[in-house]
Amino acid sequence: MSLEARCGVEKVVQILSPFKLVSREYRQDNTIIQVGNQSIGGKEVHLFAGPCAVESRSQLMEIAFAVKEGGASFLRGGAYKPRTSPYSFRGLAEEGLELLAEASAATGLPIVTEVMDTRLVPLVSRYADILQIGARNMQNFPLLEEVATSGKPILLKRGPGATIEEWLMAAEYIVLQGNDQVILCERGIKTFETQTRNTLDLSAVPIVKHLSHLPVIVDPSHGTGKWWLVPPMSRAAIAVGADGLLIEVHHSPAEALSDGEQSLTPENYYKLVKEVQEVALSVGRSLPNPTEKRIQV
Amino acid sequence: MSLEARCGVEKVVQILSPFKLVSREYRQDNTIIQVGNQSIGGKEVHLFAGPCAVESRSQLMEIAFAVKEGGASFLRGGAYKPRTSPYSFRGLAEEGLELLAEASAATGLPIVTEVMDTRLVPLVSRYADILQIGARNMQNFPLLEEVATSGKPILLKRGPGATIEEWLMAAEYIVLQGNDQVILCERGIKTFETQTRNTLDLSAVPIVKHLSHLPVIVDPSHGTGKWWLVPPMSRAAIAVGADGLLIEVHHSPAEALSDGEQSLTPENYYKLVKEVQEVALSVGRSLPNPTEKRIQV
Amino acid sequence: MSLEARCGVEKVVQILSPFKLVSREYRQDNTIIQVGNQSIGGKEVHLFAGPCAVESRSQLMEIAFAVKEGGASFLRGGAYKPRTSPYSFRGLAEEGLELLAEASAATGLPIVTEVMDTRLVPLVSRYADILQIGARNMQNFPLLEEVATSGKPILLKRGPGATIEEWLMAAEYIVLQGNDQVILCERGIKTFETQTRNTLDLSAVPIVKHLSHLPVIVDPSHGTGKWWLVPPMSRAAIAVGADGLLIEVHHSPAEALSDGEQSLTPENYYKLVKEVQEVALSVGRSLPNPTEKRIQV
Amino acid sequence: MSLEARCGVEKVVQILSPFKLVSREYRQDNTIIQVGNQSIGGKEVHLFAGPCAVESRSQLMEIAFAVKEGGASFLRGGAYKPRTSPYSFRGLAEEGLELLAEASAATGLPIVTEVMDTRLVPLVSRYADILQIGARNMQNFPLLEEVATSGKPILLKRGPGATIEEWLMAAEYIVLQGNDQVILCERGIKTFETQTRNTLDLSAVPIVKHLSHLPVIVDPSHGTGKWWLVPPMSRAAIAVGADGLLIEVHHSPAEALSDGEQSLTPENYYKLVKEVQEVALSVGRSLPNPTEKRIQV
Repeated sequence: MSLEARCGVEKVVQILSPFKLVSREYRQDNTIIQVGNQSIGGKEVHLFAGPCAVESRSQLMEIAFAVKEGGASFLRGGAYKPRTSPYSFRGLAEEGLELLAEASAATGLPIVTEVMDTRLVPLVSRYADILQIGARNMQNFPLLEEVATSGKPILLKRGPGATIEEWLMAAEYIVLQGNDQVILCERGIKTFETQTRNTLDLSAVPIVKHLSHLPVIVDPSHGTGKWWLVPPMSRAAIAVGADGLLIEVHHSPAEALSDGEQSLTPENYYKLVKEVQEVALSVGRSLPNPTEKRIQV
Repeated sequence: MSLEARCGVEKVVQILSPFKLVSREYRQDNTIIQVGNQSIGGKEVHLFAGPCAVESRSQLMEIAFAVKEGGASFLRGGAYKPRTSPYSFRGLAEEGLELLAEASAATGLPIVTEVMDTRLVPLVSRYADILQIGARNMQNFPLLEEVATSGKPILLKRGPGATIEEWLMAAEYIVLQGNDQVILCERGIKTFETQTRNTLDLSAVPIVKHLSHLPVIVDPSHGTGKWWLVPPMSRAAIAVGADGLLIEVHHSPAEALSDGEQSLTPENYYKLVKEVQEVALSVGRSLPNPTEKRIQV
Repeated sequence: MSLEARCGVEKVVQILSPFKLVSREYRQDNTIIQVGNQSIGGKEVHLFAGPCAVESRSQLMEIAFAVKEGGASFLRGGAYKPRTSPYSFRGLAEEGLELLAEASAATGLPIVTEVMDTRLVPLVSRYADILQIGARNMQNFPLLEEVATSGKPILLKRGPGATIEEWLMAAEYIVLQGNDQVILCERGIKTFETQTRNTLDLSAVPIVKHLSHLPVIVDPSHGTGKWWLVPPMSRAAIAVGADGLLIEVHHSPAEALSDGEQSLTPENYYKLVKEVQEVALSVGRSLPNPTEKRIQV
Repeated sequence: MSLEARCGVEKVVQILSPFKLVSREYRQDNTIIQVGNQSIGGKEVHLFAGPCAVESRSQLMEIAFAVKEGGASFLRGGAYKPRTSPYSFRGLAEEGLELLAEASAATGLPIVTEVMDTRLVPLVSRYADILQIGARNMQNFPLLEEVATSGKPILLKRGPGATIEEWLMAAEYIVLQGNDQVILCERGIKTFETQTRNTLDLSAVPIVKHLSHLPVIVDPSHGTGKWWLVPPMSRAAIAVGADGLLIEVHHSPAEALSDGEQSLTPENYYKLVKEVQEVALSVGRSLPNPTEKRIQV
């Protein structure tokens, strides 16, 4: 079956890049992804904020309300955590998903959460509004094909050792299954620098925009690994053209079960939002519905 | 449940490294893995040879008999191929497994083949003697846990961006499920060098031997990406202490559906075997049952 | 001789970092470097613009007046060019220095130019207002010590494989000779990404500000290698907190003897200046003396 | 002036690689470098052994006699040490050169030592038999051109971030000055592996042999950073085809002023020599004049 037939293609073009359906040659207009009443990839920039991992009802609720107050469009939080060591905290699993659904109902924020196993795609899809593919799974090809069939938007993180071309090829696996609702997320690549957990490659944003029609957001929390680097790198991400930011927030970072060092307190998150809004306006964009909280800080 | 209870541990030791059950502190003697009448991790070094991908019955049979004649202990071949692009050849799937079983029956060589999806572990286990976890899946944690339960020996490739510690942590995921039959395989890491597909990190061999009791083999085909580099790097791998070599052989590399550039012809494979045997003897080891073929070259 | 005696230190503090005199522990206030009537490291951000290499009088004059009009504070241009191949254009040497002096006299812009050889430090110092140490020479220790003795401010580029700590240690070599007028310049690090010449590490800016009192600027031309990435990365550099930008401009990039692909035309340079000014204002900074040209674009 | 005129070229060939005079296309036979009565690049493999840095007369003499007894062909030792920190031990300078000359006279071993500064080339040339260009100076182009004019053989280390092509281009700088006595030295490249100081890229050896006619040796001391990895990596280096080994030896590694962790004791050095000889014989080569010491161990 031809690509066009397989994907309901509008027109036939000569595509020179190794990725086809995700290329800017194939579709010249930006893909805009609608989730609830938010549009990802348009003029507005969005905040996807929340804890690294769901740890308990009280932890999640406290953080969920805080990020909502600070103007987040989406609530992030992990129920299944890929961990280098099998002895680390690996998430609350289905219980975590249930808590996320509860927090979503309470705050009205749609949920982004990771799925790591093809067998769990149906379960996670029942709770999540956006399915996240983590950096380690960027080239887990059966998983890419399985999440595509969920019909949900997919947030696809760049692998820490992946080139932009490999990343777009991974997105192609999803789109080729008929699901073009892919949000790319730059989250840092491995380099020799030891001051940061990864090196956030902000040039990836304009390059993705040049090569592809898909929206792209930035995760400065994993991209730096240090909370005090998150605000300046968030400003830079918006200045360079990102469509949103994925930010880890924790009401008590020192007690977080994972990624405490890179999590912002709600107070620092509010300051970040204000700074991000200033930079967004300077490049002709803005956060949606700025709240009073953000303005008062 | 304690580690000891979980894994039927012989003794309780103070283990300082982040990996526990795979550490040399936990078990001082080398783990030797018995497959058929071959022992991996002992005095003998083994050749795991065959095509990158199973392409057809005639292709597989021709190569299988050639590598057997050249003294291979195991037949390798992929039925499921992880590919950067969804448009590349992705393997014959179950048909490939059936052909591997047929080639195994004909030659007497046990089979090593990759499994990429948790849902396919039962199927692949019915055909394979050793299950391979590819480099891209080194940190696919659900897959690691699922293959462990198959009861088969696992050949665990190092990820191209993984440190040795991360690799041993991945092995720990398998052993923690109660399966300590893990063969580590160094296959090159990503570097800035452009002459090679990857940079084969031969220092990983003595480091693994120092840190862990598990056997370790080397894949100079993926580790270099060029067939003419396979013989010298194979000699070096044996000189440094590897327990075996994973080698891609194709009767017609120019026509291979994948990895033709790094595949040896049977003739060059025979020469390699002879050279490897010389070096093995110089470090007090040897290939098992040297055949006439190898001696005559 | 003690550090304090050697460097006329104001106070004795307990310095824990491996670099001493350049550390924020040693001096809490930002070092501000005065060149002519410009202050580097203060509230204003500066543009260091000009051609990669001085090619001829007419080329240099045309570009020098263009960047002045666009609001540059400094004129950059190479008379001695380090080149990977001995067969590439290696600069006009002393003739290039003379042309730079002429362009400086005509435009009033101070000169930044590279010195590669200890033996040429006296000569280059006669013409340059700021001596540049190129990325390849970041750990050329005799050169670092020799330029320090010139008494000129030093623009020290980060090596493409260097960590931030190694970079600050290189700055320490200069300051330890009694010259604390060091401007650090992030210009991209080597990574596996192939779309860019280097990966611009913008997180280096807030990290340097955290660890050291020295000013830091960003070179998005070498940091990306593509002219169309220079404007977005310049915006991001200012948003993240850089004290200036080093930008390659050429009136005819297609004919440039080096780095044409990463050079902006004067028209694109003017647009960049306007965008940079908007972002600078959004973070509470600004370019010095905005000219009409910039405002009209 | 043409390349041929500039270099007294024997014949005109079509050279396709970016490096010309060092390419295998330009000269098909191996370049063999004669130093004293040793030939580098021929059938014999050579040991270049000694301390990282010359520390004192007694230290140097003790080590020099030990490595001579163990069968070294050359004595290595640094009088000028490039150090990341200006506060580290930086060598005895000219006093170190005098001690090296004394040790050479006493043992009959020719000297290899590093030169870091163009201005010191005449001085170092008076004492050294082979001038070493350290890894950090691989692209210090004025230094490459200056050492070339000394008329001495040059040992050119690969930079830790350099590709093989960049390394051969650096050699081209030397040969283009009319000095074709260049010995290449692989000493490890920067990677993400943390168990080793660098990753020794042994595939560089057959690649250099393929692309160039110059001899190539391996430095497993810097290439690993751990003394216990030096013997296995030395065996591998010889198995892969290296023309020699550069080995750090210290009579009391724990007290060494630099690189103690990667230095072998004389006893471990003798064992290494014996192992290396076994592997050399297995690939049709040998150490020169095997001494009794080596045979007895």
